[in-house]
Amino acid sequence: MTRTTAPIDPADGPAAAPPPMHPLDAALVLQPEGDGSVTGHTSPAYANMIGPFGGITAATLVQAMRGHPARLGEPLALTVNYAGPVADGPFSVQAEPLRTNRSTQHWRAELRQDGQVAVSATAVFGVRRETWASTEIGFPAVPAAGAVPALPPLGRVAWTRQYEMRFVSGGFPDFSQGRADADATTTLWMRDEPPRPLDFASLTALCDVFFPRIYLRRRQWTPAGTVSMTIYFHADAPMLAAHGTQPVLGVARAQRFGKGFFDQSAEVWAHDGALLASTHQIVYYKE
Amino acid sequence: MTRTTAPIDPADGPAAAPPPMHPLDAALVLQPEGDGSVTGHTSPAYANMIGPFGGITAATLVQAMRGHPARLGEPLALTVNYAGPVADGPFSVQAEPLRTNRSTQHWRAELRQDGQVAVSATAVFGVRRETWASTEIGFPAVPAAGAVPALPPLGRVAWTRQYEMRFVSGGFPDFSQGRADADATTTLWMRDEPPRPLDFASLTALCDVFFPRIYLRRRQWTPAGTVSMTIYFHADAPMLAAHGTQPVLGVARAQRFGKGFFDQSAEVWAHDGALLASTHQIVYYKE
Repeated sequence: MTRTTAPIDPADGPAAAPPPMHPLDAALVLQPEGDGSVTGHTSPAYANMIGPFGGITAATLVQAMRGHPARLGEPLALTVNYAGPVADGPFSVQAEPLRTNRSTQHWRAELRQDGQVAVSATAVFGVRRETWASTEIGFPAVPAAGAVPALPPLGRVAWTRQYEMRFVSGGFPDFSQGRADADATTTLWMRDEPPRPLDFASLTALCDVFFPRIYLRRRQWTPAGTVSMTIYFHADAPMLAAHGTQPVLGVARAQRFGKGFFDQSAEVWAHDGALLASTHQIVYYKE
Repeated sequence: MTRTTAPIDPADGPAAAPPPMHPLDAALVLQPEGDGSVTGHTSPAYANMIGPFGGITAATLVQAMRGHPARLGEPLALTVNYAGPVADGPFSVQAEPLRTNRSTQHWRAELRQDGQVAVSATAVFGVRRETWASTEIGFPAVPAAGAVPALPPLGRVAWTRQYEMRFVSGGFPDFSQGRADADATTTLWMRDEPPRPLDFASLTALCDVFFPRIYLRRRQWTPAGTVSMTIYFHADAPMLAAHGTQPVLGVARAQRFGKGFFDQSAEVWAHDGALLASTHQIVYYKE
């Protein structure tokens, strides 16, 4: 009987294949180019009707900053400006720390395709410390995630299949109902599908899962797209790690629609009622 | 009798001195440097305890973009990141359009002193057009501005003398009261002092007039400073011009205080109840 270099215990059965990479992680693979930039490729799993889901683009920019060798601390604030369409295919991201202080660091980043800026971003990273704390807004009265049915994926939009969405109220509207004077607020339990432990990249993407408020408010199809999104992170890394694969609760509403743009604000809550992030965006719409 | 080169009509009386420049306009004077940058100087009138009032700095960045020869349309969204202290003295601002589309334009800008980035910003400018419109939040029930007493200026902080502030609720707290479990919401009528017609620069500065919510929430002195501020402009230039020198109503509240940072959100309303801007910021605090 010959021996292989590494003895195999027959009780292990056949050698296990490495577990497949989660689609989110696969979409966020970035290759350092040596000049300080990184390159990546859009993921068909997170495709929107045109180009990628805005949340995966925002997560890509955060990931480029997080992976930078000069990075200090964790994300505190992020603003992503969607300057032009992102085409399916390769892209480059240049992330640069503009200023590093003792406990905070300020970043700029741009995502380019064919040399043209498609997305620009700024971020503040920082080192958190224990202080007095208080949450001024209340976790809404909602049924537990398991008691709310999951929405079947929206057929033609790939990225929606990467999220489990359990709408408590304000679900995706039935446009055949025609115009109604509806409330523009949505409350839903959501998480990555398949489930994946929560981190800054996935939380960033989750902040953009809310469909445009004008769909709900007018109950009619309207071309719309995020122009700029800001996220304030209230969770730190240990809090995200402790959350694991539990669903998060999202609540989104609109403030003002007018002259082609509206703003929406949202909160993302942990399953246990802690506030993970607050997020705001201004959205283009056409009528 | 000798004639001066320009005849003087005695009926005009003595030649009138030009009206003095409003302190806001004087603070926003920017000199093009020929290399695409502009230079300015901090204004003692808008001094904060250390360095300038954050609102005047944000207005300076907007003004640098507005004055750029390539500028398209009006501000829609602005994010200003306060990366380090701004010292009293000269500064330079480099504003660059990153991408110009048919009806929107994406900007980045940095304010530098001694070659170091003190403030970074991004903005979206755009051309507005008439569409369906709706305001989803309500103008609060408040007395008219004239029925609310104006606050005497806070003695040692120069910039507060440049604003008329009429607190409806949540006024500057009396720290001698000690800690209280107070609400962190402020409602006030405010305008430039002396009154000045509203425009994008003054509206930008007004979005930062709200003192840090932690002062109100804890009723104790706490070192605090804005790290990043975002403004979504709902008003266009004709709406601001029509508003003139009337006071605006500001409402600010906090969401979450924790681990050294909190976020606050605010609305700025026209005197007639139209929403002019919604604004959000994340603020550093020390305990």
